[in-house]
Amino acid sequence: MRLSRYFLPTLKETPAEAQIVSHRLMLRAGLMRQHAAGIYTWLPLGFAVLKRIEQIVREEQNRAGAQELLMSTIQSADLWRESGRYDDYGKEMLRIRDRHERDLLYGPTNEEVITDVFRGCVRSYKDLPLNLYHIQWKFRDEVRPRFGVMRGREFLMKDAYSFDLDLDSARHSYNQMFVAYLRTFARLGLKAIPLRAETGPIGGDLSHEFIVLADTGESEVECHGALLEKAVPEGVDYDGDLQPVVDAWTGLYAAADEMRDAAAADALGDTLVRARGIEVGHIFHLGKKYSEAMGATVTGPDGEPVTVTMGCYGIGVSRLVGAIIEASHDEHGIIWPASVAPFHVGLINLKTGDAATDAACATLYERLGPDRVLYDDRDERAGAKFADMDLIGLPWQVIVGPKGLAKGVVELKDRASGAREEVSTESALARLVG
Amino acid sequence: MRLSRYFLPTLKETPAEAQIVSHRLMLRAGLMRQHAAGIYTWLPLGFAVLKRIEQIVREEQNRAGAQELLMSTIQSADLWRESGRYDDYGKEMLRIRDRHERDLLYGPTNEEVITDVFRGCVRSYKDLPLNLYHIQWKFRDEVRPRFGVMRGREFLMKDAYSFDLDLDSARHSYNQMFVAYLRTFARLGLKAIPLRAETGPIGGDLSHEFIVLADTGESEVECHGALLEKAVPEGVDYDGDLQPVVDAWTGLYAAADEMRDAAAADALGDTLVRARGIEVGHIFHLGKKYSEAMGATVTGPDGEPVTVTMGCYGIGVSRLVGAIIEASHDEHGIIWPASVAPFHVGLINLKTGDAATDAACATLYERLGPDRVLYDDRDERAGAKFADMDLIGLPWQVIVGPKGLAKGVVELKDRASGAREEVSTESALARLVG
Repeated sequence: MRLSRYFLPTLKETPAEAQIVSHRLMLRAGLMRQHAAGIYTWLPLGFAVLKRIEQIVREEQNRAGAQELLMSTIQSADLWRESGRYDDYGKEMLRIRDRHERDLLYGPTNEEVITDVFRGCVRSYKDLPLNLYHIQWKFRDEVRPRFGVMRGREFLMKDAYSFDLDLDSARHSYNQMFVAYLRTFARLGLKAIPLRAETGPIGGDLSHEFIVLADTGESEVECHGALLEKAVPEGVDYDGDLQPVVDAWTGLYAAADEMRDAAAADALGDTLVRARGIEVGHIFHLGKKYSEAMGATVTGPDGEPVTVTMGCYGIGVSRLVGAIIEASHDEHGIIWPASVAPFHVGLINLKTGDAATDAACATLYERLGPDRVLYDDRDERAGAKFADMDLIGLPWQVIVGPKGLAKGVVELKDRASGAREEVSTESALARLVG
Repeated sequence: MRLSRYFLPTLKETPAEAQIVSHRLMLRAGLMRQHAAGIYTWLPLGFAVLKRIEQIVREEQNRAGAQELLMSTIQSADLWRESGRYDDYGKEMLRIRDRHERDLLYGPTNEEVITDVFRGCVRSYKDLPLNLYHIQWKFRDEVRPRFGVMRGREFLMKDAYSFDLDLDSARHSYNQMFVAYLRTFARLGLKAIPLRAETGPIGGDLSHEFIVLADTGESEVECHGALLEKAVPEGVDYDGDLQPVVDAWTGLYAAADEMRDAAAADALGDTLVRARGIEVGHIFHLGKKYSEAMGATVTGPDGEPVTVTMGCYGIGVSRLVGAIIEASHDEHGIIWPASVAPFHVGLINLKTGDAATDAACATLYERLGPDRVLYDDRDERAGAKFADMDLIGLPWQVIVGPKGLAKGVVELKDRASGAREEVSTESALARLVG
């Protein structure tokens, strides 16, 4: 993409309303603009990142055996009356009345709708286990939306729901999501750790939050240092026994907030790490809370009806854009992990209008691939081009000017390390196209 | 995908509430379920089709130079007060009040929001022309939602908005979308024709509806027969002059409803075709209606402010799922065009449990590619498998049974023509993997 044609309204000034670094950088780098309190328009650069994150989440959900569908944003209030949550949910639920005076709401989550889909479609234990997910916009009417996409009102979430015949099977479904989450966050370039979380009235040990470590994180976590070095499983057989993987991750102490255990922390001595983190996912065993209230049963092997056991599994997709920036930036701007970068390379023309430089850039642009390159062909000062390219944080920069070309070289810059080297055009291509 | 694991709740009975064939088939083939009046859950098979359509629309928008972003579903009422449409829009607008008693609405369209984004981000004529689009859910509170996704309340739409300095440039932006629409519908396997549409108070000739021809279509159209045979342009240079292409398509008589011209129709004699059709797209020159009301100006070449000229361009993405079915089905079910088919091949195992048949199917499944094949490995009667596979309408079926295998053949069936032939496994693979 040529920057002269790209809709990328960066800001020179730091917007006063933005209190945290990801919010500031998302506005400054032209990723999004606020539409109303806690509601954003995703501009092309931010949208591209959002889509890349979504696609990685999708691939890992599919790999783990979950199936994608799509539930509507607007839901019927009647289902929430069935589950008993319509009155309980409080003011965060955006309640709506349609032209026929029927009560609707903008879904803040989807347990009721998916349970209704399940009971309408599934009859036999032979159709279990089943894990259904969607990636859809949600709305929670936060009393004080803030921190940009980290605590917005309209936000994109992946939520999966598992249905099983019994607790053993439900635990396997839970473990599948646990492992899929480890892999998802690793592919996003994040260091994420699972923390045991409150299970509420359902009890048991099947509730984990996934926390991305970032110095600017919202909450303090403490954990065994070895957790930070653990390798994420590859080539997983999701039909096989995943318990050993889950045990290896949950066997090491890790906690935040109300789950802290002073004795366990003290016992770790020097291996205890305290850090800050951002919650980006939560997996949760639901038991029969919704299936009982809403009559989600199947015919069991013996012909008798069985109320199914459920789990729910969320990932904050739009929140992840902010979380990645919190975890990966410097004083110059964003540093995108390669897997989510909106473009792989930023190509900087130091002298737009100079025939030789334009020609060299045009060749690089074509050979690197216009979809993978953002080519700064604007008639701007070099300093402004450098600052903008650092701000938007593409993994690689190729800097092309008349002086270098006279020597037969271009400059290759690694955004993360800041390392620059002069290389021939061909060797830049070899490095970047691979 | 193995059908034994796939969430595909087909229906044997035709649902009574479904009045048109696409609605009936979408329910029967397990593409979607109704959640509330005019609001649907897209099940995995329907979701896959929706995503394929969306991707083709996206590719052709990008090719024509439009840039994708994403506006929220929930909009501020204040912007609609600025444009004057908040009070005019009537009961189809879903109006919402949040916890702080601020007026919001679920966007039925996005002229106000995009104009607000534009005026907040663009300062100079040098940033024009600009065409921004998104693919987002909309809500229109239809008084009587019906016909399934053809007239739903929550629906997915691609809407693009162009911004130009003057009318000549705006006409070029319009022509870009005109040509992109021709290409989009052709890639979707549809015969679509552009019809001149009402321009309302803005006047001029820059308003066209795109109608998909289907015997079961909602409205009657008449046109010059040559329009039905016209080749859609390939290898288009969207920066070049597109007027000759547009003229070639608009120079032939075509009209529906209030735009009919009895004299023009009579003059065509035998070359006049009458057919039924479904509206799937609409492109429209907006002039300065929104830019004037909302102050969307740029600094012109002479330093003076210029109010920009706009256009808007819609495609009903979720509606297209229904329109494609209306245009392409038979008494047995859906016939998906290859470009939007959820799977390319349906693999039917005639004797699940028979070792040789299972092994042959497993090999075909792997070599055809599990993402491209729906493998009916269920323990069901052959007749039920045939009926289900015809119902869901994948382009090809490969039918594998012990008798054929003993002769060294499988059966290859073309869903559209119904033609069947016995071929060797290798030649089936050669045909289907290509």
